[in-house]
Amino acid sequence: MTAASKPTTEHIATFLKAEFPQNKTLILAAGDMGATVKIKVGFGDLRPGNTISGPTMMALADVALYVAILGEIGIVPLAVTTSLSFNFLRKPKADRDLVGVCKLIKLGRTLAVGDVNLYSEGDDQPVAHAVGTYAIPAKR
Amino acid sequence: MTAASKPTTEHIATFLKAEFPQNKTLILAAGDMGATVKIKVGFGDLRPGNTISGPTMMALADVALYVAILGEIGIVPLAVTTSLSFNFLRKPKADRDLVGVCKLIKLGRTLAVGDVNLYSEGDDQPVAHAVGTYAIPAKR
Amino acid sequence: MTAASKPTTEHIATFLKAEFPQNKTLILAAGDMGATVKIKVGFGDLRPGNTISGPTMMALADVALYVAILGEIGIVPLAVTTSLSFNFLRKPKADRDLVGVCKLIKLGRTLAVGDVNLYSEGDDQPVAHAVGTYAIPAKR
Amino acid sequence: MTAASKPTTEHIATFLKAEFPQNKTLILAAGDMGATVKIKVGFGDLRPGNTISGPTMMALADVALYVAILGEIGIVPLAVTTSLSFNFLRKPKADRDLVGVCKLIKLGRTLAVGDVNLYSEGDDQPVAHAVGTYAIPAKR
Repeated sequence: MTAASKPTTEHIATFLKAEFPQNKTLILAAGDMGATVKIKVGFGDLRPGNTISGPTMMALADVALYVAILGEIGIVPLAVTTSLSFNFLRKPKADRDLVGVCKLIKLGRTLAVGDVNLYSEGDDQPVAHAVGTYAIPAKR
Repeated sequence: MTAASKPTTEHIATFLKAEFPQNKTLILAAGDMGATVKIKVGFGDLRPGNTISGPTMMALADVALYVAILGEIGIVPLAVTTSLSFNFLRKPKADRDLVGVCKLIKLGRTLAVGDVNLYSEGDDQPVAHAVGTYAIPAKR
Repeated sequence: MTAASKPTTEHIATFLKAEFPQNKTLILAAGDMGATVKIKVGFGDLRPGNTISGPTMMALADVALYVAILGEIGIVPLAVTTSLSFNFLRKPKADRDLVGVCKLIKLGRTLAVGDVNLYSEGDDQPVAHAVGTYAIPAKR
Repeated sequence: MTAASKPTTEHIATFLKAEFPQNKTLILAAGDMGATVKIKVGFGDLRPGNTISGPTMMALADVALYVAILGEIGIVPLAVTTSLSFNFLRKPKADRDLVGVCKLIKLGRTLAVGDVNLYSEGDDQPVAHAVGTYAIPAKR
């Protein structure tokens, strides 16, 4: 596989596991300018009030974006988040896993922009909405 | 019409014209948690490089959100923008009108959140993406 | 202490520890419309490339804001983050603790807004900048 | 003057006037990683409720950032805004001019980030706060 070819979901999962061993996100889909990822919510992700921590949500949104970008540009370990903006909309449910759905709205030569909706699995109203930008290394 | 009933596109247009006489936005659609609005791009909106000014884009996004909210909660003149975030994605075309498509992602009792894509009319890639929040007066 | 009086740094620390037992942030200062907090960077916060994870930074910014608000309005467990926007500016150092300095720019009756700079301890250039909003419960 | 030398306030003002003839912003200061700019509020900037339009505020914040960047990197007409985020904090006064104070928090090779506070002239509480990013052309 060359860096510029489109990797499979498995390629991306293998890369994430090697690069970020503490990351426990599952990749449900990647490609077509988007990605769907999921995190098994565990005890460390919970917060008082029967809900899920902000950082857990923020981490999932970041991974959703990263996976969507890798799905388009290939495995580029040096892509870095330059901005992430969140609106927290509804309380996520503590007893559901958290799903993130990213759609890239721009994939330029040096900058990618995507939006992400986060859902308690099985709900159709998002618990949070994020917009993020990634800087893509100049040569690839 | 009571404040709480859903107004027609014409009601909203009449209200906007009375309240903001200098506003020249056309409402193409409102309702179903969204709105589509359009601005006739004029000389004052242009910028060097054959493009459209940032403030023209920002104003259109703000109106798109406002119209989407009015379409749901009725004519509430006191709703105010509390935040607006923009990512500028592509250069808008100077010889095309600018279209804004808003989708509300939360409509709470006191806060509404929506995202807006702006397009050069006829294109399907957005020139800018915005996310905004409005505070809704407590009693209505 | 009534809810409306200004709590001491110790009050806030005790509340945070009881409410968020997994939180390991230290409060260095609170009051005067701001707060300074610090997190001891541990193995779980690290990332490849000798740096610190995004979620660790995001969590610290959120706590900085929360502490700054509690320092003004008193212990109000129901205040919730409604938005958080980050710009990642420089790579934080893996061998330094992370410090967050929040300054409130608005403290309204129902909404607080603050900005936060995050630093690798001892540096004067921030590694990230955040702006966040909190909804404050109507009655307190 | 080479592009890389630091221009004077007058150089920047002359450039802005030539490049953006419809722009009526005054540059009060530029340099030291910041800028202070002011707009004479006119009839077209006003809104019902004795206040100033959102787009007028947004335009001023954008110019403040641009001037701060030009003050550091020299006259680079191709720098473009890639994102702008606003929190609207207080109602600006219709009978006061509007002042924007920008502070750059990052000035990288290809990206600049700054924050801007907007004030009704003479007040010390900001009416709005913005954070913006600019892409800087690779060769200069």
